[in-house]
Amino acid sequence: MRASNFKVKGFLFSGISAGIKKDGKKDLGLIYSEVPARVAGLFTTNKVKAAPVQLDMERMKRSLCQAILVNSGNANACTGSQGLRDAKRVSSWVAKQLGINEQLVFPSSTGVIGSQLPLNKIEKRIPELIKNLSQEGWMNTVEAMMTTDTFPKVEVATCLIKGKRVKLCGMIKGAGMIRPNLATMLSFLVTDANIKASLLQQMLERSAEVSYNRITIDGETSTNDTVLLLANGKAGHPSLNRMDRDGKAFQSMLLKVCQNLAKSLVQDGEGATKFIEILIQGARNKEDAKRAAYAIAHSPLVKTAFFGEDANWGRILCALGHSNAQVNPNRVDVFFDKAPIVKNGMGVSPRLEGKAAEVIKKKSFKVTIDLRQGEHQFSVLTTDLSIDYVKINASYRS
Amino acid sequence: MRASNFKVKGFLFSGISAGIKKDGKKDLGLIYSEVPARVAGLFTTNKVKAAPVQLDMERMKRSLCQAILVNSGNANACTGSQGLRDAKRVSSWVAKQLGINEQLVFPSSTGVIGSQLPLNKIEKRIPELIKNLSQEGWMNTVEAMMTTDTFPKVEVATCLIKGKRVKLCGMIKGAGMIRPNLATMLSFLVTDANIKASLLQQMLERSAEVSYNRITIDGETSTNDTVLLLANGKAGHPSLNRMDRDGKAFQSMLLKVCQNLAKSLVQDGEGATKFIEILIQGARNKEDAKRAAYAIAHSPLVKTAFFGEDANWGRILCALGHSNAQVNPNRVDVFFDKAPIVKNGMGVSPRLEGKAAEVIKKKSFKVTIDLRQGEHQFSVLTTDLSIDYVKINASYRS
Repeated sequence: MRASNFKVKGFLFSGISAGIKKDGKKDLGLIYSEVPARVAGLFTTNKVKAAPVQLDMERMKRSLCQAILVNSGNANACTGSQGLRDAKRVSSWVAKQLGINEQLVFPSSTGVIGSQLPLNKIEKRIPELIKNLSQEGWMNTVEAMMTTDTFPKVEVATCLIKGKRVKLCGMIKGAGMIRPNLATMLSFLVTDANIKASLLQQMLERSAEVSYNRITIDGETSTNDTVLLLANGKAGHPSLNRMDRDGKAFQSMLLKVCQNLAKSLVQDGEGATKFIEILIQGARNKEDAKRAAYAIAHSPLVKTAFFGEDANWGRILCALGHSNAQVNPNRVDVFFDKAPIVKNGMGVSPRLEGKAAEVIKKKSFKVTIDLRQGEHQFSVLTTDLSIDYVKINASYRS
Repeated sequence: MRASNFKVKGFLFSGISAGIKKDGKKDLGLIYSEVPARVAGLFTTNKVKAAPVQLDMERMKRSLCQAILVNSGNANACTGSQGLRDAKRVSSWVAKQLGINEQLVFPSSTGVIGSQLPLNKIEKRIPELIKNLSQEGWMNTVEAMMTTDTFPKVEVATCLIKGKRVKLCGMIKGAGMIRPNLATMLSFLVTDANIKASLLQQMLERSAEVSYNRITIDGETSTNDTVLLLANGKAGHPSLNRMDRDGKAFQSMLLKVCQNLAKSLVQDGEGATKFIEILIQGARNKEDAKRAAYAIAHSPLVKTAFFGEDANWGRILCALGHSNAQVNPNRVDVFFDKAPIVKNGMGVSPRLEGKAAEVIKKKSFKVTIDLRQGEHQFSVLTTDLSIDYVKINASYRS
């Protein structure tokens, strides 16, 4: 993607190394809007919330944000009252030097849990961070928030609202995970659209439901998960206040951007060698479809079989059977892409199984499980469980 | 253990290779009681139940069993009505040649899901299997039911009931797993005690609650999990009908044997390098303690950290936070054995952390999480998540 594509009116970006990460890579980023922007946000549902999450949730109440300060290398989680004081302190430094209200600065952190923020390092580099702000600097911000991500993940889209072309740019930081619920996802989206705060929040929640929430388990997230959407109105159209035709156009664009970001997150899963969609269809109800999909997507035995390119469909049925979904084992059909592997709960002929076995050698494929109990469906994106996943996570802190 | 220690009056054992496993190792075993024995049983709660499980659950209704026919190398699961016919067929062959009622034979299978039983191979070897029956043959039976187990797991105990010495011998087959809920556990126990069937069932359930069920998640088990306890009364004491002093003596012995078997199962976890007890204390209620314990014991990030000998306590708090247990993050204390690593939700000093870091270099240790919310506790046994776990499970069928 060309850097110019990412420009959004009134937004500036920056990212530098402040020495928080041991390897000297970028670890401190800033997103700045020239005017206060409306903000929508989603935060971790983990009861253990990092200090910056607690602070942002409080500041969200004003529905305005002008700057996001993000750091990697340190999560500022499980850091007690000092952690909260520190989150306030770094945001006040940024506010002061930008000449804006401290309440408009949203800090965000990712990295190791349980260490206090290295305040000196951050304070020293804030002038440089601000000096480097530019419309083209978004890639520096993305790099500054990466942890085990292997590539930067950004998305851009435009649409027409009330006759004006508006732009939406989003970035996401990987968590690079097999089970997103246990690693941190940070995603920041900026747009020059002019949208009422309550509508913006509603749109973000709708989009998250079929994007970020399709790669995570409900209510199981890291201590730091944060999604922020800033709308600064610089596109110059009258305020969008309800879900009319223009509202739908923006919603649809937002949804697409969120889905692409979520998809790229899974593709960069830690140690992942496969990118797999699990689709449950024919479920009695949505809840059942969801339960079944997550039971399969989270089964370490299913995931290791995919890594080994072993068409071991018995593990899929086994995971299904303990999912608490309504299942009649004798009705279940399973397909790898379009190749049938299970018919009425039993394996297909060796010739047909051979075709399905070819599918799982692909880098990316879809597993469809038809419960034949009803009309509902649910899909979730996941990866395999590889040797590298264990290696990466066994030595994360060292 | 000396083979003679394992002798139980009236029980004979056998185990041979029938060529079901590709590697030529033992894969067909038989346990035979000279007289019909009272039987207690526990079976998988997975909705997808293997054919032998379905058959045994039906046969349990008579509360009598005289023979257990076990095979490895094939689970006879997801095999439809043919699977059920086959399970009946193999048990009828055994019954006929032993000269006993077919309803008294309980088949049990473990291995790959989705292939039909190789009937010819089994039929051909049943005469030899029966010919080999002996009081000392238990080790052959244990070997015949092993899959990825790296060592045979047996336990023996004795106690006095109504003045007679009674013996209890148990064997367990590994599932050799990190998450027992996703691999098959078979455990067979035999005793010469004389116990009423309903009391026997009650005792088995009580024992399982604090043994087998402490290494698995409620309602999440493989398609084949089976525990059978046979009591043939050969010790010659009057029938034990209620939980009096003698009843308690047997219950206590049974509990100890089941706990030791469960413990050995975890110690032989697939690829496991660590053997870890997770103890939650200070919980508001038992349910909370259980939820928290399983959330930590099942977290792949906690388990890989243990494998890497990384005292990454933040992952423990993170898992705790999404466990749905009542948690006040600022009150949580964590210990590795007796070394404190977290106090009031925050890391201890580097000097103290160093001591805790020494603990996780041990092969076996205890992680105590004190929620300081109440008086309830729950503990669960688990292992780390290693590179070998992935290797073993990626190539299980090939």
